[in-house]
Amino acid sequence: MTSSTNMRLRLPLLCIILEVILIILFGTLVEYNDDTHAKLWNENRTDSATRNDHENEFYYRYPSFQDVHVMIFVGFGFLMTFLQRYGFSSVGFNFLIAAFSLQWATLMQGFFHGLHHGKIHVGVTSMINADFCTGSVLISFGAVLGKTSPVQLLVMAIFEVTLFAVNEFILLSILGVNDAGGSMTIHTFGAYFGLMVTRVLYRPNLDKSKHRNSSVYHSDLFAMIGTIYLWMFWPSFNSAITNYGDPQHRTAMNTYYSLAACTLATFAFSALVNPEGKLDMVHIQNAALAGGVAVGTAGEMMLTAFGSMIVGFLAGTISVLGYKYLTPVLESKLKIQDTCGIHNLHGMPGVLGAVVGAVTAALASPDVYGHGLQRVFADVETGKWNPQSRGGFQAISLAVTLGMALFGGLITGFILKLPIYGAPPDTHCFEDGLYWEVPGEEEGHQELYEVATPNEVEKLSS
Amino acid sequence: MTSSTNMRLRLPLLCIILEVILIILFGTLVEYNDDTHAKLWNENRTDSATRNDHENEFYYRYPSFQDVHVMIFVGFGFLMTFLQRYGFSSVGFNFLIAAFSLQWATLMQGFFHGLHHGKIHVGVTSMINADFCTGSVLISFGAVLGKTSPVQLLVMAIFEVTLFAVNEFILLSILGVNDAGGSMTIHTFGAYFGLMVTRVLYRPNLDKSKHRNSSVYHSDLFAMIGTIYLWMFWPSFNSAITNYGDPQHRTAMNTYYSLAACTLATFAFSALVNPEGKLDMVHIQNAALAGGVAVGTAGEMMLTAFGSMIVGFLAGTISVLGYKYLTPVLESKLKIQDTCGIHNLHGMPGVLGAVVGAVTAALASPDVYGHGLQRVFADVETGKWNPQSRGGFQAISLAVTLGMALFGGLITGFILKLPIYGAPPDTHCFEDGLYWEVPGEEEGHQELYEVATPNEVEKLSS
Amino acid sequence: MTSSTNMRLRLPLLCIILEVILIILFGTLVEYNDDTHAKLWNENRTDSATRNDHENEFYYRYPSFQDVHVMIFVGFGFLMTFLQRYGFSSVGFNFLIAAFSLQWATLMQGFFHGLHHGKIHVGVTSMINADFCTGSVLISFGAVLGKTSPVQLLVMAIFEVTLFAVNEFILLSILGVNDAGGSMTIHTFGAYFGLMVTRVLYRPNLDKSKHRNSSVYHSDLFAMIGTIYLWMFWPSFNSAITNYGDPQHRTAMNTYYSLAACTLATFAFSALVNPEGKLDMVHIQNAALAGGVAVGTAGEMMLTAFGSMIVGFLAGTISVLGYKYLTPVLESKLKIQDTCGIHNLHGMPGVLGAVVGAVTAALASPDVYGHGLQRVFADVETGKWNPQSRGGFQAISLAVTLGMALFGGLITGFILKLPIYGAPPDTHCFEDGLYWEVPGEEEGHQELYEVATPNEVEKLSS
Repeated sequence: MTSSTNMRLRLPLLCIILEVILIILFGTLVEYNDDTHAKLWNENRTDSATRNDHENEFYYRYPSFQDVHVMIFVGFGFLMTFLQRYGFSSVGFNFLIAAFSLQWATLMQGFFHGLHHGKIHVGVTSMINADFCTGSVLISFGAVLGKTSPVQLLVMAIFEVTLFAVNEFILLSILGVNDAGGSMTIHTFGAYFGLMVTRVLYRPNLDKSKHRNSSVYHSDLFAMIGTIYLWMFWPSFNSAITNYGDPQHRTAMNTYYSLAACTLATFAFSALVNPEGKLDMVHIQNAALAGGVAVGTAGEMMLTAFGSMIVGFLAGTISVLGYKYLTPVLESKLKIQDTCGIHNLHGMPGVLGAVVGAVTAALASPDVYGHGLQRVFADVETGKWNPQSRGGFQAISLAVTLGMALFGGLITGFILKLPIYGAPPDTHCFEDGLYWEVPGEEEGHQELYEVATPNEVEKLSS
Repeated sequence: MTSSTNMRLRLPLLCIILEVILIILFGTLVEYNDDTHAKLWNENRTDSATRNDHENEFYYRYPSFQDVHVMIFVGFGFLMTFLQRYGFSSVGFNFLIAAFSLQWATLMQGFFHGLHHGKIHVGVTSMINADFCTGSVLISFGAVLGKTSPVQLLVMAIFEVTLFAVNEFILLSILGVNDAGGSMTIHTFGAYFGLMVTRVLYRPNLDKSKHRNSSVYHSDLFAMIGTIYLWMFWPSFNSAITNYGDPQHRTAMNTYYSLAACTLATFAFSALVNPEGKLDMVHIQNAALAGGVAVGTAGEMMLTAFGSMIVGFLAGTISVLGYKYLTPVLESKLKIQDTCGIHNLHGMPGVLGAVVGAVTAALASPDVYGHGLQRVFADVETGKWNPQSRGGFQAISLAVTLGMALFGGLITGFILKLPIYGAPPDTHCFEDGLYWEVPGEEEGHQELYEVATPNEVEKLSS
Repeated sequence: MTSSTNMRLRLPLLCIILEVILIILFGTLVEYNDDTHAKLWNENRTDSATRNDHENEFYYRYPSFQDVHVMIFVGFGFLMTFLQRYGFSSVGFNFLIAAFSLQWATLMQGFFHGLHHGKIHVGVTSMINADFCTGSVLISFGAVLGKTSPVQLLVMAIFEVTLFAVNEFILLSILGVNDAGGSMTIHTFGAYFGLMVTRVLYRPNLDKSKHRNSSVYHSDLFAMIGTIYLWMFWPSFNSAITNYGDPQHRTAMNTYYSLAACTLATFAFSALVNPEGKLDMVHIQNAALAGGVAVGTAGEMMLTAFGSMIVGFLAGTISVLGYKYLTPVLESKLKIQDTCGIHNLHGMPGVLGAVVGAVTAALASPDVYGHGLQRVFADVETGKWNPQSRGGFQAISLAVTLGMALFGGLITGFILKLPIYGAPPDTHCFEDGLYWEVPGEEEGHQELYEVATPNEVEKLSS
């Protein structure tokens, strides 16, 4: 049974058990918050004549939430459809683990972010935060794409969401740092967690599936749907949970400029590193997004448009160079098989974003921010604010995040290595047919999508 | 001529006549409402110093409208592209009948929802309502997909929109029930209307086109674009026309949780009902959405997050089981050929949603809702409110809707059976080439898309 | 070297130089505006107790911005993927030139729209305006699609953005006309600029690439993604920068009705002009959008719903007829090779929109608009308003725009004709393989995507 990839019992059992646990915990622990509760919202209103329905946080957060939601489900989902025979799994498993993670994240984040009389309060802001946490899991998914069963992915999500919430709590609540767009909490954490998992799950014989580990013409176009949606809505992502007013507005704009500059860098270096000067879809699909990652921390600060453009340009550059020169080395020397190259899109740009955030925080001054200083740096009000120590805490947060991610990925990797999850054999990685009913192509192509039955797989992999 | 599928005169004539009628009726009957009229909006403002442009309903409804609009045109349109050779028609006819229906619905709904001095007033809320009504027509389209000409579809839309408006008027204005997300008015109505139409249009020899009534690899990926957009924006759909403030916020959140739980149920049961434990794209594309349908009535009530998750989980479960076990029986025993399985996505989950709505309404109490009770149940203010009778009216509404849908579908089905619309012959169902100029695939594949000319079709079908 | 299409040095050099110039100019000239600057936003707030964060323009413009952003990157990008082997370039070059243009447009428009103590102030409104200007460049891209190198496109963008800003300045600031949705500034300008460029770049031997200048089945479906997104979000496009309140609300609704009517006209005439009554994807993909173009000027006025529908119906009609009868003549007689038929989608409907705008402005009266008159026509407040002269200025603006576009396109065309940009040879137009690493199709199809190496190209084209 261990080498069988048959999901008939494992996947339903796990999904049903998890959902039942979630429902029980939600029933016990979760309540509507003041803005979603019929009684509480209208009670408060009676108290104060000036409050009206238009002030419900729904109207100021929900459009951002929907943009983030599109990034999570369409953006990440389609970005990973670039593989020639892994489109169903890319979109489908993305869908599954995201739907699970957002529920689990609501509980974990609610627990750490502060209970209200023992209850977790939910509303649109918790929905955004849950989607953020989910994003981190999907980043890690990119590293192990094509080499894991859906059961493994759900198990990974259980652990990763939990550790994400712990790390986020340390950074935002204990260290009190800024990371609205998640350069550290989401991107750096998700990337190094995933890289460590894929390191532990190293497959020396993965080249047996090498012929499927590449794109075809139309799969690259599907992937561009993911890329473009991520690119367009990244300004909403980075600004979704900043304070209202100038911080949210500024964050969106800084991200917009960073991404625009990043795109030019990506095209420039993609052509430059190719002997014939041809552009590589892998770079365009991924590196052009690095500019959004790299302003995830500093975006809400007074980074200025041209500062954002410099950061974006750098991010695009290191990302393309990473794909070209670093990824092959990581695989051959460090045995890190990173299917989507998340180290180049989320890892290095996330670290860059953390550093830029630390520097920008250290340079903050009342001269520049005026009364807006306390809107960005929460500890100004408590009188504890000091730009240098702020910068220092930001830097410490990066170290904490890297440590948590690598340690968490290590443990999780070993758990995922147990031979009980129906992982694909080396010969059938990057292949939808293992877990999906796959239709034939038009007549004459059917043989392409014929895959071994589970029994044959057992034989093959034994 | 009767068996010819040539659209050269029929389609242009019908489109032009319909649009001319629409323009004349709009010219006679339709006026800008207070929020869109230059004079009225600014007049009112002068009267009251506190009113300002930011209070225009545009800013509170338009983002929801756009999400709904995406569901109607991208969501429904691409969801139906799963057939291997029917992508042009799926997206294209969806586009055509939606563009017609939203205009016609504006008139029908405006007429029933209350005229202002003999005029229909339009604004963003009427746009959302028109899109909702259009959604109902597109649900019915799913049942007859591949077996109808565009002329038939337009004729169906004329009748369905009209009956939709009548049914909606009975439910919302006479019975005064709640159905913000349309579990009854949109999903139940659209589903059973469409099922009755396809029953009347039963084709005993449809298996002559059986080889085209299935997907290919990339058509399933296009369909997933539709699925994911429907899934993401369903919270906006259900909350688009609720009252401002907590009801809108709560509805969106309940829908979000219902869909997340539904997705886990869908993956669980899809693997469970397959002998090899393989997932089926048909289930993922459709059943994962049933959670949105099933909270269409109760979503605005104090259903709680965990209540929503239970409903969503049930909806996903019955939807997958319906696809696996009920659809084949409906076809073989009841002669209902339901191309997209709308009974599983909209029919049963719609009925479930109506029942959940009735129960939740019957359990409503001032203890739970406080002053918010009248924001959800309109008859609280008039003093006629009583939770049990509320629940009873909700249940009656389901019966009314089923009756209207089945009766309307029956009549419309017989009208559509007249041999004057250029319906496809049994041998050429699920085939774009009948109504579209279809390009060849890349060299060497052209023969795949060669279809019979209309003359040949006449011969074939005589 | 002149005939080589190798981009290895040219493209990186141009991208890097441009981005460095942009960064320097942004560093010198660009500042956060009052709504994005931490100090300025919070300073003003302190002065006035009633002002609060919710009044930041972000909340009233950003959802529109995101819709416009989707149109620019997904809408235009995917609309052009209809060609069988040019999908990477369509989406990719669209991405590149849009990312460049929006930065360059921010500077050019900021310069002309009014400096603040020598500085350009940026915020969400400048982001929308930059996207609008980018749209104009992408329209022109449609005319030369498949026949230009990315270097040529960037050079075209440099000139076109500059002239766009000049023309916009003349229309909006000097002549003071209305053109919120850009029938003139965006569509007419972009179309005739692009048509002139492609005229100058006329290729007598383009039929050597004729076999690639057509669609395949799935490429047409990708293009429909672009079409549908443009169609859905056009109401946001036309209303994105109107005044708050009734003008924005009304513009969105007028556009919605215009597009609905346009769609019925498109289907009607597409079937009518085909001998077999079959619908043509080219018409559906393009002409159905003409209704949005044609109310780009008058949409914010009291055009009424039925007026909008008449305009939309006309626009769809002339657009289909243009594709069928005019485009072939333009190519054979006037030597204008217009790949996407932008003359039919943006050119003629843009001119129609300008005329409709002039007439509607000339018919404006305080009776109809009340106090809202000054919200639409800015010169009412200054007392200079006169409907006939308003209409006259609108008409003059069309003439100015046509003149600027044709003259600018002529100059730019000759600049682009220099043999230094690595343009594709006549034998390799409409071919991704020249500038992109193109993966094979599934096994057995690889030979389709083999293209000549640059050396072979040199030989072929010499």
